[in-house]
Amino acid sequence: MPNIQDSLDDREIHLDRVGVADLIYPVTLPERGGGSQTTEASFGLFVELGHEARGAHMRRFVETLERHARELTPGGIESLLSELRTALGTQTACAEIECTFFVERRAPVSGARSLMACPLCYEATLGESFDLTLSVEVPVMTVCPCSKEATGGLAHSQRGHVVVAVRAHGRVWVEDVAELVEDCASAPIFPLLKGDDEKSVIAGAHDKPVFVEDLVRNVAERLDSDVRIHWYRVEASNLDSVHDHNLYACAERSR
Amino acid sequence: MPNIQDSLDDREIHLDRVGVADLIYPVTLPERGGGSQTTEASFGLFVELGHEARGAHMRRFVETLERHARELTPGGIESLLSELRTALGTQTACAEIECTFFVERRAPVSGARSLMACPLCYEATLGESFDLTLSVEVPVMTVCPCSKEATGGLAHSQRGHVVVAVRAHGRVWVEDVAELVEDCASAPIFPLLKGDDEKSVIAGAHDKPVFVEDLVRNVAERLDSDVRIHWYRVEASNLDSVHDHNLYACAERSR
Amino acid sequence: MPNIQDSLDDREIHLDRVGVADLIYPVTLPERGGGSQTTEASFGLFVELGHEARGAHMRRFVETLERHARELTPGGIESLLSELRTALGTQTACAEIECTFFVERRAPVSGARSLMACPLCYEATLGESFDLTLSVEVPVMTVCPCSKEATGGLAHSQRGHVVVAVRAHGRVWVEDVAELVEDCASAPIFPLLKGDDEKSVIAGAHDKPVFVEDLVRNVAERLDSDVRIHWYRVEASNLDSVHDHNLYACAERSR
Amino acid sequence: MPNIQDSLDDREIHLDRVGVADLIYPVTLPERGGGSQTTEASFGLFVELGHEARGAHMRRFVETLERHARELTPGGIESLLSELRTALGTQTACAEIECTFFVERRAPVSGARSLMACPLCYEATLGESFDLTLSVEVPVMTVCPCSKEATGGLAHSQRGHVVVAVRAHGRVWVEDVAELVEDCASAPIFPLLKGDDEKSVIAGAHDKPVFVEDLVRNVAERLDSDVRIHWYRVEASNLDSVHDHNLYACAERSR
Repeated sequence: MPNIQDSLDDREIHLDRVGVADLIYPVTLPERGGGSQTTEASFGLFVELGHEARGAHMRRFVETLERHARELTPGGIESLLSELRTALGTQTACAEIECTFFVERRAPVSGARSLMACPLCYEATLGESFDLTLSVEVPVMTVCPCSKEATGGLAHSQRGHVVVAVRAHGRVWVEDVAELVEDCASAPIFPLLKGDDEKSVIAGAHDKPVFVEDLVRNVAERLDSDVRIHWYRVEASNLDSVHDHNLYACAERSR
Repeated sequence: MPNIQDSLDDREIHLDRVGVADLIYPVTLPERGGGSQTTEASFGLFVELGHEARGAHMRRFVETLERHARELTPGGIESLLSELRTALGTQTACAEIECTFFVERRAPVSGARSLMACPLCYEATLGESFDLTLSVEVPVMTVCPCSKEATGGLAHSQRGHVVVAVRAHGRVWVEDVAELVEDCASAPIFPLLKGDDEKSVIAGAHDKPVFVEDLVRNVAERLDSDVRIHWYRVEASNLDSVHDHNLYACAERSR
Repeated sequence: MPNIQDSLDDREIHLDRVGVADLIYPVTLPERGGGSQTTEASFGLFVELGHEARGAHMRRFVETLERHARELTPGGIESLLSELRTALGTQTACAEIECTFFVERRAPVSGARSLMACPLCYEATLGESFDLTLSVEVPVMTVCPCSKEATGGLAHSQRGHVVVAVRAHGRVWVEDVAELVEDCASAPIFPLLKGDDEKSVIAGAHDKPVFVEDLVRNVAERLDSDVRIHWYRVEASNLDSVHDHNLYACAERSR
Repeated sequence: MPNIQDSLDDREIHLDRVGVADLIYPVTLPERGGGSQTTEASFGLFVELGHEARGAHMRRFVETLERHARELTPGGIESLLSELRTALGTQTACAEIECTFFVERRAPVSGARSLMACPLCYEATLGESFDLTLSVEVPVMTVCPCSKEATGGLAHSQRGHVVVAVRAHGRVWVEDVAELVEDCASAPIFPLLKGDDEKSVIAGAHDKPVFVEDLVRNVAERLDSDVRIHWYRVEASNLDSVHDHNLYACAERSR
């Protein structure tokens, strides 16, 4: 094939991102305890393209991903981006990687074990330095404070989702984020609850009603007290049970 | 363009469906009260293709849809299929049409008006006779009977979705289906509730806890008693608030 | 209902956004030629929440949307945000509105008319001033320059999508954006083409092969020369026909 | 928790399916060559519910899945359903399992290796006998026969997807289905192609133009000649590059 990509471009337009998107590939995710999980991820891999080059060599993104160990550690991602920069001949490379991490849950009374799927996303850029954002989505249960007070206890409850994105000095594990969110909602969610577990979860949730605003602030307080974290964004969505739309709150902070 | 589609095919393979899918076009939806709503719909339009023809003239599907009044009445859909049969020269034509219908809701105490979006789907076939299935998805609120009894009232609740598909003699309106479902859940859902409305809805919902199985059976009983309906399928999904998966039930019956 | 939302919060955490999301409501979209289109839109409506208030009155978002004329003009959106600020008692309100606009297309030879669905999105903020971003997604056809040269003409082609987001002084219409993109790809896409139209489109596309990078730069050049536009972001995705992943390019500029 | 599920129901309505849906759990997928792949799957697990029982014990679905080896072999799925029947006390259990399988691809000239993600679905029922349907989606490239002839070779091409569902006596592997589809399109799709590979694929594709109808018939002919397969449904969708809608064909046959 002719290398038309390398021909000169005179339109004087720098491209912020050029690359491949929606590329599904197997990955390994390290667990805090030392083990690992194997699953699939969707990759977006990009570089900057200076105004003088007509195109990027798109196949080199796939080639680099194919031969690279796809272990989604901070070091593994930085090394992937470093190889992409070399392969594409650019100063900056970035990645958006989406996959699912399974967090082990133990039911509160029976101790029954189950695995809860948490969607996660890595956004990484390697330029003059390496910048990594980890986002984890954690499902929770929320009980409405208003309806609890108005009805003398018959509060409505619903499923909610909290998405926590962090940039940190030092390693923050997916499990750290999932645990941090657990105590901030009316109750955590468990894939498997036996009878007494469910009773305990529901009673506990009614003792701790939270608005979607409370949920975000509770998580933000925890993140504020974690010295590793120098930036965060917390978003919460409640799948409100008396409406068909969602209730949303968001807080973003840099230290 | 050469008509390669019309060339003979000797593979002896009849195609059950050939046509266009995911075609977005404006439509008009009639209201029971005499008005109408204008919105967009996604069309799948298909014909059978006998084993002897190599291909269908795909552009004729779009051409027919473009020039046809796209009023989604039973008569309007039958006439569209009839024109498709003529345009494509086949015995059978069918359509799958997905869109959104807005049902007017009045809050129970304040009477505040709002519009609730109900996804709907028409599946229609015109062969020796005309067969039409209307499916409507209605959001509802459900309160768990088990947790209510176990905790002395602190039941967990969640949003649920009921999908009712019917084939009927005589006209069944989207509004008919939406109303029928309303009384079958713990409570209907309203886009807009003022303070006293919300209190009333929640108290009412706790007086009427339903499993996802109850929800399907409640709807099925209503459909059984509607003499117009000769086939139905009721599906309900609960976005359970103590788990991150959904609970599901389904019943299908022919009269 | 008790107004627990108005109680004081001592966590000292300002919330950047609080509100409702995924609320589906009917809207009217003005056409450049003077007419209008009626369809549905998904609304996210938000305000800032100062650190001292525990919660926002979520029902006021729906109440305001319900009673407001939902005409998606710049003026209509600003007025909706202005009413939201008053209803919620805040300095800032913002909206994200997603819907579909139908652009009329005429086939190049036959002149056959059809309607092409273009997803569009408005992002608006009313604080000290009013800021509005319009994004329009336009489908196009691209022919690969490399494969054309390598094979002596047998280039592979594919469907692509261009998303143009603009902030402008003065009115930029959806139709303006759709037309601007048309000439930047190998060929525009038409829902309906007759035989000679298709031949003409395909021949024209092969005379004008573009990489996804070219596509973005062609659009950027046009936007650069439009004095109304003071910020833009152009993204293009090619549904590559020799791969199952997409090729992507993006350029963002402020004047 | 009280066992309200076990209370008698007098509505006389049999439920065709009751269970859990959208439950994400890790799975292992066997490879034809003897290895295996680990990934995540979305489970729907259901039983029939006789008219006399008010509800199913929903937690037993998750409990059974949690403790069962989740190896997605025909034997593993049958054994899971067998345990579900025992746990729920029913005659029939069924499952719908969706995940991704990676097929190894070798580029035609360079031999470069890459992994192609193929969505797959198992639908299984264990009643009086065990019935299993395997569906595999395979991406392909198609070149339009009409435009090739009309323009003297400048055919338009696009990405297509073929979904093959089979019920068979004896083991049919995902790899078998992926290979079978490869030769039926204008060309297979590869995640990674080097320069000479791409030239070869594109030239080959132009020598073998296929309509979406041809694609389905080519696959159907192959399935007809495979004596293991006693039922199939082949669906193909072309992401047409001169339109923004898809072209579709389908054939279903029982032996």
